[in-house]
Order: sequence, then structure tokens, then C-alpha cells
Amino acid sequence: MTTTLPSPAVLGARAFAALAGINRFSDEPGKLTRLYLSPSHRQAAEYVKGAMEVAGLTAFIDAAGSVQGRREGASPGLPAVLIGSHIDTVRDGGRFDGNLGVVAGILAAQAIRDAGITLPFALEVIAFGDEETVRFPTSLSTSSALIGHYDHAWLESRDADGVSLRDALVAFGGDPAGIAALARKPGSVKAYLEVHIEQGPVLEVENEAVGIVTAINAQSRAAVRVSGEAGHAGTVPMKLRKDALTAAAEMALALEEIAGAHDQAVGTVGVFRPDPGATNVVPGAVDFTIDYRAPQGETVASMERQIQQRFGEIAQRRGVGLSITPYSRDDATPMAAELQEALAAGIARTGSNLSARRLSSGAGHDAMAMARLCPSAMLFVRCEKGISHSPLENMTELDAGIAIRVLIETILELARREG
Amino acid sequence: MTTTLPSPAVLGARAFAALAGINRFSDEPGKLTRLYLSPSHRQAAEYVKGAMEVAGLTAFIDAAGSVQGRREGASPGLPAVLIGSHIDTVRDGGRFDGNLGVVAGILAAQAIRDAGITLPFALEVIAFGDEETVRFPTSLSTSSALIGHYDHAWLESRDADGVSLRDALVAFGGDPAGIAALARKPGSVKAYLEVHIEQGPVLEVENEAVGIVTAINAQSRAAVRVSGEAGHAGTVPMKLRKDALTAAAEMALALEEIAGAHDQAVGTVGVFRPDPGATNVVPGAVDFTIDYRAPQGETVASMERQIQQRFGEIAQRRGVGLSITPYSRDDATPMAAELQEALAAGIARTGSNLSARRLSSGAGHDAMAMARLCPSAMLFVRCEKGISHSPLENMTELDAGIAIRVLIETILELARREG
Repeated sequence: MTTTLPSPAVLGARAFAALAGINRFSDEPGKLTRLYLSPSHRQAAEYVKGAMEVAGLTAFIDAAGSVQGRREGASPGLPAVLIGSHIDTVRDGGRFDGNLGVVAGILAAQAIRDAGITLPFALEVIAFGDEETVRFPTSLSTSSALIGHYDHAWLESRDADGVSLRDALVAFGGDPAGIAALARKPGSVKAYLEVHIEQGPVLEVENEAVGIVTAINAQSRAAVRVSGEAGHAGTVPMKLRKDALTAAAEMALALEEIAGAHDQAVGTVGVFRPDPGATNVVPGAVDFTIDYRAPQGETVASMERQIQQRFGEIAQRRGVGLSITPYSRDDATPMAAELQEALAAGIARTGSNLSARRLSSGAGHDAMAMARLCPSAMLFVRCEKGISHSPLENMTELDAGIAIRVLIETILELARREG
Repeated sequence: MTTTLPSPAVLGARAFAALAGINRFSDEPGKLTRLYLSPSHRQAAEYVKGAMEVAGLTAFIDAAGSVQGRREGASPGLPAVLIGSHIDTVRDGGRFDGNLGVVAGILAAQAIRDAGITLPFALEVIAFGDEETVRFPTSLSTSSALIGHYDHAWLESRDADGVSLRDALVAFGGDPAGIAALARKPGSVKAYLEVHIEQGPVLEVENEAVGIVTAINAQSRAAVRVSGEAGHAGTVPMKLRKDALTAAAEMALALEEIAGAHDQAVGTVGVFRPDPGATNVVPGAVDFTIDYRAPQGETVASMERQIQQRFGEIAQRRGVGLSITPYSRDDATPMAAELQEALAAGIARTGSNLSARRLSSGAGHDAMAMARLCPSAMLFVRCEKGISHSPLENMTELDAGIAIRVLIETILELARREG
């Protein structure tokens, strides 16, 4: 059966060509920035829909902005295996984060169709649109729509320009009223698989092309506001200052220290906005974000307690106000054991030089949402220096091809299990 | 002669009415933000020109955007006494910083005209437009134009939207080619006087309505860039990070410590911009500004050496790149002794309950530029809690009136000295 499948080299070349196609669409010239519901997101979604159709899938852009494609199995209406990832990016992001997984699904479906294989389940490919949480303060909103856990308050959230998600979705061509109907019935989805670059250094260091994700780490995010007292940078004596910026700086360093003291944990301040933000004004307030993660939920809970205590001490000592508003909290998400085994079988069929390295994911993924609906698993692919969320993000064409071949073999393995 | 002059109470009421007039014009609704060459700056300049004309001055808006008004003395073309301050503000600034000094000059000229007094010198009032250095990286550009020290490279500098000062000036109705001709001949200006809120807590603490400035502190500003390595907030282990934000945070705290360790010194990080500035991305770079000041030039030089050393150590230890680009450096500017004496005489004539408190200025002022052209001095006025560069900036109407009456009496004192 597999003799008619394209080689990893061919699949890799096809993947890079498709990625170049999708990545023509950006909100910022000279950079890859494709925020949820932006004009470039619409263009990329149309491109993906076309690619799905060429691959033999019936495709549409759904009410929340995801692109969905489906090829029926042996008979119409069978439960489906879903292959997905996302096509939104961070600002000035990389070419592979998310996009690789969507392209992998499309090329896998195409190769299976081209090989004349009829599956005992429907095969679907989904390109989610809101994974990076850059534009709106949501949490995997498009995959949450698919599993029936969409928080309709998200529609009223606003981006930095004051545009509501609701208005942006309508402008995109979506349908706020149609989101509820996107929810899949549990029995209608057999499995969810996602291919994604590792975004970390492990596979490269260990010279492995691919790896099987065991769990997605627990993570927590909060918006922090420090309120001090604005003043003239030349006239307010140091001892009388309530400088919100130096207070916030001390908190950023405390988070770094707390993360460093917990096993396999990370902690990041990514957004940091002093108000008013002028050279000659002592900042009266700072808004910043904290993001902290660890493989165990208990570790994240311990970090949270220390953050509250240390930030509170700093605020009190400096006489500034402090508010910490958690807006996203995810416990660790274990991946389905039977799908990890199917991926291992797929890896074994792809190449005897590959091994089924298991590792946890420090990054969040749509698979976190999908795992609430159905057995879910992820295949990580080696990337350069572990760099992502950056234009320096890179990987080899061959590794992309190997990953897609593993995905195909895994789908066929699932088909074999049905038989 | 002085029996015909308005009382401090009357002058204060007139001042607050004029300030309310000028402060209708803002770039941001609900806040007072009037950046150099913005539409609201043009509107405020037109308002000031009208107020000058009503006060008996011949007025025009000059090539650099300053408003100039002049009333001739006993004969046309006599050397002038200049009264000035500025009408630009910081973002979300206060109502009195700069504006009070312009209004004081206009109301003083009006009162002297109304009293039928002919002066042995011309009296001019100037509303400078670029004192706060918020929009463009200039340094007192409009007063520098008046003294013939305009740096024409400023015209090519750009604001955050990429608009050049040259284009903004043309759009405002100014004339880049006409700036050089604004330079006054040294002998044509006898003295420069500026009334300004203290922007610090000294006069309030000591229960003094006004004070005489002895010198403007030395100050230095630099743009700092820290270059680390962007990465995914969930996947790059803490030990492998080159986080530009935590490096910059440590530098902000180092500056705070250095300033605290120098007598009467201050140090401020006001601008702080992480790149890319997203919740789930380890910042790859941070741009921030440092502003540090002290009464003695040697103190500022010592701070600069310590800043370079400490910042360098932090960058080296964390493996990040560092560039410190000074863009403004001013030595301490002593105020003219004879004008300080004239102000003391003016204070004595205004009220026996006032004393001539001497203090240095922690803030920079247009008087720093003017002192290069002619004898210059400043009168500080008490403000609430020392707060400025904030909507909380406040002062009493009576204090404003007292300051204007002192200004009038000082001008008459200078006239007496001519006699």
C-alpha cells in the first residue's frame, strides 16, 4: 500500500512550496505578521481553502474564521480523524509555527487520495485562526469553537485599536451567531493529530527529526498593573518617588528568579508598557504581562503563590499599587496514549533511522482544546536552535517531509486498527 | 506708578482664564497633550497670538513655530527684554507647565500698557513650541533657533509615525528655510525672564509662593538599546535565554541605585519598549531612555561613568548586546546674578510677606538656551505636591497672580535701572 506514497524528499519540497504560498500574506510588509481576522488572515484562509480543494477535500471557511476541509471515508458521514494546526502568527513571527501543521494535513490528505486509498473514517484538515493570542485576549478561541467551549464574552473583547472581536469577525466574513453551531458531537470525531515544530532545542540537540509529545505543559498568564505616581524626571527627589517602572522592573526580575528556581519551569514578561512613556516623566503606571509554565500543574501553582508574595512585597516596599489579573490558566494536558503508540508505529514505518523520542511541550497548542473533545496527540519536528516566534525560525525541507510521511503512516496505522 | 497696576488676585483670575483658553487645544480628547507642530499646537499658537495682540503687542508666528510679540519702548528698535516660556506639553500633561510663563508675559505686558507706562526698552513675549522633547529627539529647538544655535540636522529627525520635523513644520505653516534668520543679535536682547511652576516640592514645603532660580541643573539623556535573542516564552529554557527585557529591567534598577547614591541627583527610565512586545515571546530587544541630572556637572559625569560600567557588566553577564547613545547633554546653567537681584527687588515690592527663596532647577527650561545669548533668570512658582507632567499638576490662582505681579515689578525695576 505504502509503495505509492511520495517520499519525504518530495513531501518536503511540496510543503515548502505551499508554505511559501501561505506566507505571502502578511499584515506588515517585510515581516510575517498575520493576526487573527486581519485582511492577510482572510487571504491566507482563502489560499488554504483552495489548497484543500486541490487535495480532494470539500472545504469552507467557518463562522469563527477557521478553514475546514473534509474527505469522506468508505461511506459518507463516518466519524472523522482531524488533522489541524493554525495559520495565525505572532508579530514578526516565523514561517513554520502553525503553518507547517496545516500544510502537513493537506499534503497527507492529498497523498492518501492520490494513492487511491479509501479510509474507514472521514479525514478532515483544519486551519485554526486564533492560536497565538496576540490580537485579542482570548484562549484558543477557534479550536474552542469546534469543541463547543467558546466563551461568548470573547466577542466583546477588543484589540489595541479598540476593535471588538465581534466587529472584526463580521468584517472578516465570519458569523458570530454561527459559532455555537460549530461544536462537534463527541462521537463524531475519532482523533485529533497535530504536527508542529518543536519550538525548543531538544530534538536538534539529540539529532532526532521528529518526537512524540507526551503532554502539553501547564501554563498561566496574567495582566499586571503597577500604579505609582507620575512626576517630572528632573524635580522629584529619588526618595519621594513612586516610580511604577522600577517597581515593575523589580517584579520582572523576581519572576525570572522564581522560574529559574522551579524544575523545567519558564517565566516571561513579554508586554511592558509604561504610562505615559516619555523620556522626562517618571512613569505613573506600568502594564505588563506574565506568562509562566511547567510540566506539572502543582509547579505552576507554586510559582503563582511565590509571584503573588514577591510582587506584593515589592509593591508594599515601594508604596505602589498592584493588581494581578489572571486571564488564562491551563492545567497540563496529557496526550492520548493510543495515539502516541500510533505515532510511534508511523515513525517506525517511515524510517529505521528514526526513533520515537518522547518529550513534553512547553508551548500551548490547539491540541490542548481538542483533547477535551477527543483523543489527541502531537508530532514535534526539529527546528533550528529552538528559535520560534521570530523571523529566524527555521527547519529543513527534509525534516518537514519526514514529518508528513510519519503523519500519513500514522493515519494508515489508525485505518489498519479499524480493520 | 505702581498704584495703577492690577492686584495679584485680579492677575491670577486673568491668568486662569487665559490658561483655560489655551488649554482647550489638545491632540487627545480628555487629556492635555500638545506636541510640537501638531494641529492643537497651531491652534494654541493662534490663540496666543490673538492674546498678545489684545495685550498691545505686535505678534506673529515665526518660522520655527514660536509665537513672538513685541511692544516698542520709548523709541522703536530699542534692545528688548524678553519674557518667555513654552506652550507644548508632554502627553497627558498639566495645565501650567510652560503655559503659565507665556500667560504671565502677556498679562504683564498688558498691565504695563494699561498703566500707561513707557519703558526704556522694547518688551517682548515669546511662546516657544519645543521644550518637552516628546515628539522629536531635539533639544530646546525653538529657543535654540532664537539664539542662532539651531541644529539643522533636527529637521531630518522623525517622530514615532515616521514624519520628519521638516515635513511637520511645513504642515504647521512654518518655514525650515527661515529658521536661520530668527537668530537674534546679542546686543539686541537685554535680558530673558521666565516664570514657571517649580515642578518640585520645595516652595510648598517652605510655604513660599515664589522662588528665584540660581541655576538649572546639569542633565544628560541617552537612548539605550539592549539586544538579546527572541524566543518562545514556553520552550526556551531559562538558562538558555538572552532575555532583553530582564537585562533592561536590571539596568533600570541600576540607574535608580546610582542616582540615589549621588547627592541631589535623579535618574529616570521613562520610555521602555520591548520588541516584539507579545505575551508569549521572550523579548529580543528593548529600547529605553535614561535621563539623569544633578546640580553639578561633575556629578552627572560621575553618574555617566557608573552607568556605562554597570550597564556593561549586566550586558556581559547576560550575553546581550548594549548600545548607549547620548542625545542630549547640558552642563549646569547659572542664572544671571543681576537679574536674580532684580527679581528679589520685584518680590520685595510685591509683598512684605514674600521672601526671595533661592533654589536650583531640576528641570530643563528654555532659559538654558537663552542664557547663551543674554543674561537670563527664572522665577519659580509654588505648585501642588511638586507634581507636574501629569493631569494632577495644580497651583492656586493667587500664586499665579503673585508671580505675574512680581514679573511686572521686576520689569519696572529693570526700567528704573536704565534711568
